Amino acid sequence: MTGSEERAVRIARAAWSRLVEPGDVLAGALVAALGPQEALAWLRGGQPPPGEATSSPGAPAGPSPARLRLAAAAERWRVRLPALDAERELRLLERLGGRLVVPEDPTWPAGLADLGPAAPMCLWVRGSEDLGGLLDGAVAVVGARACTAYGEHVAAELAAGVAAAGRCVVSGGAYGIDAVAHRAAIAVDGPTVAFLAGGVDRAYPAGNARLLGAVAETGALVAEVPPGSAPAKVRFLQRNRLIAAVTRATVVVEAAWRSGALSTARHAAALLRPVGAVPGPVTSAASAGCHRLLRDGCAVCVTDAAEVLELVGPAPAPDRSTPARPGDGLDELRRRVLDALPLRRAAPEESLARAAGVSVPELRGALGGLELAGLARREQGGWRRPPAPPAAPPKSG
Amino acid sequence: MTGSEERAVRIARAAWSRLVEPGDVLAGALVAALGPQEALAWLRGGQPPPGEATSSPGAPAGPSPARLRLAAAAERWRVRLPALDAERELRLLERLGGRLVVPEDPTWPAGLADLGPAAPMCLWVRGSEDLGGLLDGAVAVVGARACTAYGEHVAAELAAGVAAAGRCVVSGGAYGIDAVAHRAAIAVDGPTVAFLAGGVDRAYPAGNARLLGAVAETGALVAEVPPGSAPAKVRFLQRNRLIAAVTRATVVVEAAWRSGALSTARHAAALLRPVGAVPGPVTSAASAGCHRLLRDGCAVCVTDAAEVLELVGPAPAPDRSTPARPGDGLDELRRRVLDALPLRRAAPEESLARAAGVSVPELRGALGGLELAGLARREQGGWRRPPAPPAAPPKSG
Repeated sequence: MTGSEERAVRIARAAWSRLVEPGDVLAGALVAALGPQEALAWLRGGQPPPGEATSSPGAPAGPSPARLRLAAAAERWRVRLPALDAERELRLLERLGGRLVVPEDPTWPAGLADLGPAAPMCLWVRGSEDLGGLLDGAVAVVGARACTAYGEHVAAELAAGVAAAGRCVVSGGAYGIDAVAHRAAIAVDGPTVAFLAGGVDRAYPAGNARLLGAVAETGALVAEVPPGSAPAKVRFLQRNRLIAAVTRATVVVEAAWRSGALSTARHAAALLRPVGAVPGPVTSAASAGCHRLLRDGCAVCVTDAAEVLELVGPAPAPDRSTPARPGDGLDELRRRVLDALPLRRAAPEESLARAAGVSVPELRGALGGLELAGLARREQGGWRRPPAPPAAPPKSG
Repeated sequence: MTGSEERAVRIARAAWSRLVEPGDVLAGALVAALGPQEALAWLRGGQPPPGEATSSPGAPAGPSPARLRLAAAAERWRVRLPALDAERELRLLERLGGRLVVPEDPTWPAGLADLGPAAPMCLWVRGSEDLGGLLDGAVAVVGARACTAYGEHVAAELAAGVAAAGRCVVSGGAYGIDAVAHRAAIAVDGPTVAFLAGGVDRAYPAGNARLLGAVAETGALVAEVPPGSAPAKVRFLQRNRLIAAVTRATVVVEAAWRSGALSTARHAAALLRPVGAVPGPVTSAASAGCHRLLRDGCAVCVTDAAEVLELVGPAPAPDRSTPARPGDGLDELRRRVLDALPLRRAAPEESLARAAGVSVPELRGALGGLELAGLARREQGGWRRPPAPPAAPPKSG
């Protein structure tokens, strides 16, 4: 493709993303069949629907049902033609430092192909220049806006662990679990991407404006609707399919019985991506949706970052993999005891045994092995981890 | 069988339960093959092992491996022969108001047959005269001794719901979850049975003596070891197989990563009984074992009594079934709102919506329907349930 052809494809796809609502499979199929420019030319020309064979002598008279459906959809799409100015919107995006990513680009996220005709026309991106690379092996960490302190704590743990392992944390930029997940990834200098329901020029919700700015700086803000688009309710639901599709697995931290996070989980399950749900107290309405996913068999129970990483298998590429960490290769018992060892102040054996959920004799056996491996140190009648060597900063994609 | 033959069978089985440790499959197979009396006569007589064909001319010389194994086991069993006095132990049981139940009795619990040669020789019972009927359709509610207030709360809810539905709550009589489960069943006048690791003459643990007395009065205390037997550690593990086998399903409320309750769950799963695990905070070591069961696929997630009852299907027999209750047949949304409605004091809509995990408009729609059905009443700017009519006492088996 020449530069001007490439530019024409981008403008046509940008136009389509303005004309149709996210997830319009009829438009997706039309653009896939004709290409974005020819499909747009057809829409503008008002000619009879393409791809319709001329009636053979034996065929019934009149338009086919598919032709009628396409004609009705085209009427809907044409409503926005008069105000269309894709070039202006692309210039606006460029002024924001962003770029349009289209399926024809090598940086198009691979997972989106699984959406078929429901794939987005293009993605409006602020941040990373290699969105596909950034999202390779990514994990979605999503959940309720109305989360509890427990949910915040667990979301931060999981997202930090996923990001520290070099995997991008994808979420929706909302209040609650989403915000905590982005923040925790940034806190460990890990990659994170927010998929927005409205345009990337709008910080929505406004209270997350600073956070979304930080996400754009360290990772990316992404939308399938052009700048200026409002985050309407139906766009949130469609946005969830993108989060499910671009990630290798989706984890729901807290979700009420009816919660948008469940739609992300169900999209992921439909795309055959692993889904994890974090359990919580059965007395907490904020965990009812997670328990529902577990009961439906839609999700597996995950309780820590290691179990989340287990969902997605080995790290995606060597240059993204986490460096070997103290404790790799330990057996379950020692692993649990190591996890329970405090970093700063030594803890007595009884409290360590409680924290690790092991008996005191088991604890002592495990501590002996950990001490030999340089992973535990006895101090003032208790045990702690030895001070860590200065860590190399995790690599972000 | 005549009365004296029957008595002889009981005495022989009582003797076997003294001679061998619980779960001895070799003894179980021998008794099943020869009958308890002939097997005992053989053990006393010291003759060569029964069932061994005389060597045919072509067969290798010397005793077979099976014969050697049985001979070694018999040596072990004979150690307790000199002190054996089964009739005395039966008299002791009768003085306690108890009775021996043997597989030949119609009141033998049906589920024990699934244990094959690991089935108990007999059961020493204090309480109900119809142990099999009492246990028909029973549910095991088990868990950690070192439970949390959360675990106690949930165990009480589940056990009360199970017992109120006319199903026997089976547990192990231990501190913690077990005790709460028995207590909650008794509190709703429901049936409950404790399977003990030691003799039924011993209240173990001593701190539960009053509770175990109440269990014997309203349900039954059961052991497969004779009176006077100490609750040794290995007997606890074997006792767990009985709890799994006599019940239709097992629910684990709280369990640390290594907990005896997990052995009950694994026995139940091996016997193809449904297993439920109650989730909890992933930050709570007391829930780690439950999450382990969920992750292993050994258990399904259960969050309330209705979900526990779902595990076991419809009530076992009409005379045990719970009477129709207000709210039967409601849709999910109304059901949730009804569950959230307080019994005594009216609650405002916002807090009801939070409790039910529904939006305020959904709540209002549901409340309208519930009010029409006489299940909700508006009062002082909030909503509550109308006062209940006097309830009939639940039937115990």
